[in-house]
Amino acid sequence: MGQDNSASPFSVVADGSITTPKGFKAGGLHCGLKKTTRHDLGAIVCEVSASAAGVYTTNVFQAAPLAVTRESIGASGKLRAVLVNSGNANACTGKQGEDDAYEMRARFAESIGVPAEHVAVASTGVIGELLKMDKVRGGIDELPVRLAGDRAGADDFCQAILTTDLVQKMVCVELELDGKRVYVAGAAKGSGMIHPNMATMLGFVTTDAAIGSEALQGLLRQATDLTFNMITVDGDTSTNDMLVAMASGLAGNDELTPQHEGWAAFAAALRHVCEVLAKAIARDGEGATKLVEVRVSGAVSDDSAQAIAKTVIGSSLVKSAVFGADANWGRIIAAVGRAGQPVNPETVDIRLGDILTLEQSRPVAFDEEIALEYLKGDTVVIRVDLHGGDGQATAWGCDLTYDYVRINAAYRT
Amino acid sequence: MGQDNSASPFSVVADGSITTPKGFKAGGLHCGLKKTTRHDLGAIVCEVSASAAGVYTTNVFQAAPLAVTRESIGASGKLRAVLVNSGNANACTGKQGEDDAYEMRARFAESIGVPAEHVAVASTGVIGELLKMDKVRGGIDELPVRLAGDRAGADDFCQAILTTDLVQKMVCVELELDGKRVYVAGAAKGSGMIHPNMATMLGFVTTDAAIGSEALQGLLRQATDLTFNMITVDGDTSTNDMLVAMASGLAGNDELTPQHEGWAAFAAALRHVCEVLAKAIARDGEGATKLVEVRVSGAVSDDSAQAIAKTVIGSSLVKSAVFGADANWGRIIAAVGRAGQPVNPETVDIRLGDILTLEQSRPVAFDEEIALEYLKGDTVVIRVDLHGGDGQATAWGCDLTYDYVRINAAYRT
Repeated sequence: MGQDNSASPFSVVADGSITTPKGFKAGGLHCGLKKTTRHDLGAIVCEVSASAAGVYTTNVFQAAPLAVTRESIGASGKLRAVLVNSGNANACTGKQGEDDAYEMRARFAESIGVPAEHVAVASTGVIGELLKMDKVRGGIDELPVRLAGDRAGADDFCQAILTTDLVQKMVCVELELDGKRVYVAGAAKGSGMIHPNMATMLGFVTTDAAIGSEALQGLLRQATDLTFNMITVDGDTSTNDMLVAMASGLAGNDELTPQHEGWAAFAAALRHVCEVLAKAIARDGEGATKLVEVRVSGAVSDDSAQAIAKTVIGSSLVKSAVFGADANWGRIIAAVGRAGQPVNPETVDIRLGDILTLEQSRPVAFDEEIALEYLKGDTVVIRVDLHGGDGQATAWGCDLTYDYVRINAAYRT
Repeated sequence: MGQDNSASPFSVVADGSITTPKGFKAGGLHCGLKKTTRHDLGAIVCEVSASAAGVYTTNVFQAAPLAVTRESIGASGKLRAVLVNSGNANACTGKQGEDDAYEMRARFAESIGVPAEHVAVASTGVIGELLKMDKVRGGIDELPVRLAGDRAGADDFCQAILTTDLVQKMVCVELELDGKRVYVAGAAKGSGMIHPNMATMLGFVTTDAAIGSEALQGLLRQATDLTFNMITVDGDTSTNDMLVAMASGLAGNDELTPQHEGWAAFAAALRHVCEVLAKAIARDGEGATKLVEVRVSGAVSDDSAQAIAKTVIGSSLVKSAVFGADANWGRIIAAVGRAGQPVNPETVDIRLGDILTLEQSRPVAFDEEIALEYLKGDTVVIRVDLHGGDGQATAWGCDLTYDYVRINAAYRT
């Protein structure tokens, strides 16, 4: 989006992390679920009861931790902590899987001295295998002493939630509300099975803003629809996705409601945090070499623009062409045409960056060398103007590469 | 499907082709649209006015030849010929493209001495470039003397319609109606942009059965929904797909209507021809090493089963796992769960061939070596039983490989 900071109601904190907002500690360690020595168990803990909100996968098959986290947030809208493991998704694991998720929650709650229903749990990794609970138990018992309120703790947590991700994803912004400095931060993991409707991703937002659970839930849902739900890596939706937000209230602002003059600013800050994380997930998609951004304008509605943007960003042929730096607008228009949305086939413009390739649905002569140079960059923006209304939307994804196939042909084995 | 010939109302003609049905000639040549010396222009011609039917892409953007073919078939339900070029799709080519498609029709009609509206035209290849009409004209003028009623003519035609296909696709079956031998044959091309709703594929069916245009259209639509519309290579839908059927009536049977005792037999023969071609397209998908068949049963309805089967067959993660011979049923169940269909998350069985991997949604211990051996074969059957009703469907696709990416990263350039 290229945030224009001069007009923005918030600004990015250069070295900020999920522990920058007041009241949060984080940490991670290797308990033995991953074959490597990388961290595979982590937690974020808040020193007070934080207002909490959650958004979950729409997949029919939902992993055991999701039910447990829903129950926790549903109980009182409050959380003190979220515990996450990677290396095993605890999905399709039946009654034993549920028992394990509950045990994780109870044991970690006890280890930090809070009620069980103030702990959320999340898992990511292989489906259908039982958790090695002896490893998990050992990790949980050690985790409290590994928590820290600094950048190192946040980094440890970020590493603990990664699977095939290559880089950790974290962002922090600040804004002023009622004369108080307020931070909003987030961390996330990708990177395969990423698709609209909360696909294999875990996201965690921390803020020290004072805001009630319901208000936070509403803003989190809005932000998700425009950010996490607008990215796709491969069209697959995981059984485990969730986004959890915790607001400690320790910044000392007046409680945020729609009537608060800082409401829109906070919403923008939260959306920005989600957008940065979503784009980072797309860029770090399995095997990806580029971030692809599809901007659709001139649609009959924003919903219609969203559907079209998602179809283009999800097209294997478009993704392959971007990988090959091929200015193949024919595949873009073919994807637009199969999105099931009202489109006038005679009035479509397509640009690659600023390079006009199709105008009023007719090919435009363009310099192939300049297009090649543009497509070789690490970010490719595809702009589609339908000239059919005011609807617009942006979606993010990545290119389809040999490495995507390599990674996914041998993930489980 | 493994046709049981003892009970089948038809049988496969071992060396049959699209010229086996009485009245048909075919041929092909290289006119210069492809950079190689492979054939790029071909035709099927019927010596009498054949009852005709057509099914077309649902893409909003439809290539010029589709409008021309619709017009031809719409005029009287009769065709004498279909003319096809490969190497250029004549799509997104505006008024000039329409003029070119009409000129192709008129010139070929004149060269074989039939009315223009008795000729259908089809194109496949690159989108957005104008046809080199000087090459096309030369080819059209030479084509009539290259037509033959034998296997060689049929083979020449099949080669002329290929793009990235590796093998030609043709089949012929015979059945008896009213004491007469009747042939039904077909030829088709794939192989990228293949997806339900008539994606980049061209299919041509010839038969010498006596049947009216409307009856043929109805049966062709039915067969398409269960065959061509149940295959996917990459989820992309082309601007150019069409399936055209021509029935010469020269077999001498009584005209086929729903009241004819041979109606069901003919419908089964037509469906078999379409199914063989559809499976051949899936197996020859770009970069594919295997045919993947997904059979869904126990759904609430056939439509629901179709939606689920298509979602599984279209999953990049499932396709990558099959390429890697990885018995990753977790990705299969995740795809089932995001199909947007009613599914009881507790009652799903998944088999790879005959190997049970998930029963009542719980993992079953299976011999990984045996599974690996099965998945290394050239055909992989994924069976999903939902235990939720009588709905069933079968879909076909292929694995996702390095070669798919290689082919599509450099198709246009």
